[in-house]
Amino acid sequence: MLGTENVAGTDPLASMRERFTIPEGVTYFDGNSLGLMPRSVGPKVSEVVEKQWAQGLIRSWNDAHWRDLATRTGEKVARLIGAGPGQVVACDSTSVNLFKVLVSAVRLRPGRTRIVTDIDSFPTDLYIINEVAKTHGLIVDAVPAASIPQALDVDVAAVVLTHVDYRTAHIHDMQAYTRACQAAGALMIWDLSHTAGAVPCELDACEVDFAIGCGYKYLNGGPGAPAYLYVAKRHIEQCEQPLTGWFGHRAPFDFDLEYAPAPGIERFFCGTHPVLGLSVLHNALDAFEGVNLQALRAKSTALTRHFMEAAQHRLAAHGFVIASPMDDAQRGSHVSLRHKAGYEIMQALQKRQIIGDFRLPDFMRFGFAPLYNNVDEVEHLVSALEEIMVNREWLVISGEERKAFT
Amino acid sequence: MLGTENVAGTDPLASMRERFTIPEGVTYFDGNSLGLMPRSVGPKVSEVVEKQWAQGLIRSWNDAHWRDLATRTGEKVARLIGAGPGQVVACDSTSVNLFKVLVSAVRLRPGRTRIVTDIDSFPTDLYIINEVAKTHGLIVDAVPAASIPQALDVDVAAVVLTHVDYRTAHIHDMQAYTRACQAAGALMIWDLSHTAGAVPCELDACEVDFAIGCGYKYLNGGPGAPAYLYVAKRHIEQCEQPLTGWFGHRAPFDFDLEYAPAPGIERFFCGTHPVLGLSVLHNALDAFEGVNLQALRAKSTALTRHFMEAAQHRLAAHGFVIASPMDDAQRGSHVSLRHKAGYEIMQALQKRQIIGDFRLPDFMRFGFAPLYNNVDEVEHLVSALEEIMVNREWLVISGEERKAFT
Repeated sequence: MLGTENVAGTDPLASMRERFTIPEGVTYFDGNSLGLMPRSVGPKVSEVVEKQWAQGLIRSWNDAHWRDLATRTGEKVARLIGAGPGQVVACDSTSVNLFKVLVSAVRLRPGRTRIVTDIDSFPTDLYIINEVAKTHGLIVDAVPAASIPQALDVDVAAVVLTHVDYRTAHIHDMQAYTRACQAAGALMIWDLSHTAGAVPCELDACEVDFAIGCGYKYLNGGPGAPAYLYVAKRHIEQCEQPLTGWFGHRAPFDFDLEYAPAPGIERFFCGTHPVLGLSVLHNALDAFEGVNLQALRAKSTALTRHFMEAAQHRLAAHGFVIASPMDDAQRGSHVSLRHKAGYEIMQALQKRQIIGDFRLPDFMRFGFAPLYNNVDEVEHLVSALEEIMVNREWLVISGEERKAFT
Repeated sequence: MLGTENVAGTDPLASMRERFTIPEGVTYFDGNSLGLMPRSVGPKVSEVVEKQWAQGLIRSWNDAHWRDLATRTGEKVARLIGAGPGQVVACDSTSVNLFKVLVSAVRLRPGRTRIVTDIDSFPTDLYIINEVAKTHGLIVDAVPAASIPQALDVDVAAVVLTHVDYRTAHIHDMQAYTRACQAAGALMIWDLSHTAGAVPCELDACEVDFAIGCGYKYLNGGPGAPAYLYVAKRHIEQCEQPLTGWFGHRAPFDFDLEYAPAPGIERFFCGTHPVLGLSVLHNALDAFEGVNLQALRAKSTALTRHFMEAAQHRLAAHGFVIASPMDDAQRGSHVSLRHKAGYEIMQALQKRQIIGDFRLPDFMRFGFAPLYNNVDEVEHLVSALEEIMVNREWLVISGEERKAFT
């Protein structure tokens, strides 16, 4: 097949697909919402439950190394986002982690009165930012991302920006925004939820201050997997994060009455580690073992480009509008098409077991996970979209109940 | 055996033990740190991972009812703590949940300047309380629990108290403290971590305002299981909890730019639900199905009383001091003995595969989980302690490295 040869002929990652369980008959383009299950997870979760928990019981905190599992999981994420050791841990949810790093940032910039962010951020980021601002007596400037540089001045404490936009897949230039932010004396926080595992980035090289991200998209950590956070080494010792649970204490098992934060990145822990979820995420990250990140990016770009070119040639006539950047360098690992019947078309795809997702008002979002998607699947998707439009399959959906999920 | 007949002869819960996996040769008295694994969990976790995630993928948010899993799990906890529907959800960690309810409480009592708590609280509660106080410009009065009533006045916004003390198992009178607190116009927050699943309580009947608790002790939800929180119905609509993540939004999938809290208890959610951990906890709670809570309490009391009486008669001569209340009504489901060589004695027990835990400075803590522990095990424990002391087994431990876990 010509389509396959374009990429797979020179695709060093083709065999990575075998690391995942792929349901019979399903073509999956929603790895940016919930990644496929790596095959190794099944046996691992049985081991954790039936052996470490059921047999090892409380002793497994030592014997099965549950104690430093969150740190070890963070280190595996670190490689994917250009972070050196001792700066990333896996814990809590993305929203909770944003709260922790944003409050930490605001406390490092006392007297400054504003937080700047992208008005098109994923809503949970906006909600948390607004709440932190309210509690700390600050103002939020939510502006289009392109206007952020102009919004920066000596009053800005922090900038929060998502690296890859969750709707359009637009990549915001990590180095440029970080520099602009820091030139104003503010601290830069990146949300990497649609980045890690598909789009390599360089937190250390870009001298980023903080980052957060989620574990269940391209990292394949399972539904509601623990999230992660990054704090640049130069800041850690000065950070006072606000969720001062015992696992962030310097010596949790001394049961001191006074909180004394751990010296390292572990001060960003709060409650007892979610061992089951962390074990799965830690195991799932092995799917990236031996994967060259430039090859990962090259494959991601090839898949999204293939889809966009096909969409231009074969779908535009049916009313689809491409909502993602044509420039490879500015595009993450998903592509959004807009169509006034987008919701119904996604449902028609789902009836064919082709799964993407839908984002209001009219974004049809297709994630191309470079570890497991391939060009054959892209071709299958484009052909299905053509057929659905030609056969007007989407019309029968219009009366049905609307459901959507992340 | 006489010991067995004392309780088991009239023990309606004897067969509940069969609901759990009990490691061969192990006698476990640490269900107050990490509960045993219910047998049903193994198959359940495989179903969630291999079917719901791997096969159902993103569709399982609807098809496998992941969306309301946290609410349904909360309802199962509710029965164990005397809470009517719509007031309990399972989410995050105990520490994070304390942060959410304490900030909510403080916001409901503007102008009041103090938070009162027990100086002997589990440290993570103290850490979170101090942090909330710092952020909100409040003062913390950490006093002995018995002095709390005298510490109450019109300046107090909230009282935080653990129902069953994590070291001594002393039960604080829920109704009396709640009334005293509310008489001063303050809001009452209970930590039920050592209560739920072993000591029935009546949140609604006592007109408690808020409660939190952990999922991995007597609820048997597995290591680092999601925690839960309770908010009295009369407060929910007025609550502004500070971790405003998208899952607490009225309509998360509308992707509104403005946060609008869910009308019900779901406003206390923050990030995406940890599906794996919640599924296990939800399943584990089935171990309480058909269990009469008064029978549960009766068995717990019988086990702790049996141990304390045996300790008085057979262990006191070896230097053990009972640190838990002799009065059944004032004692939770564990018993602490103090001994200057407590750490080493616990290690000697562990070499015999008898597992309890140790809390600084010298508390030997034995949890008696009424769903699975029995009098034979209590007898085995007492005999082992006698032998360890007579044979001086603990002496050989003294040189070894100290390790302890919750």
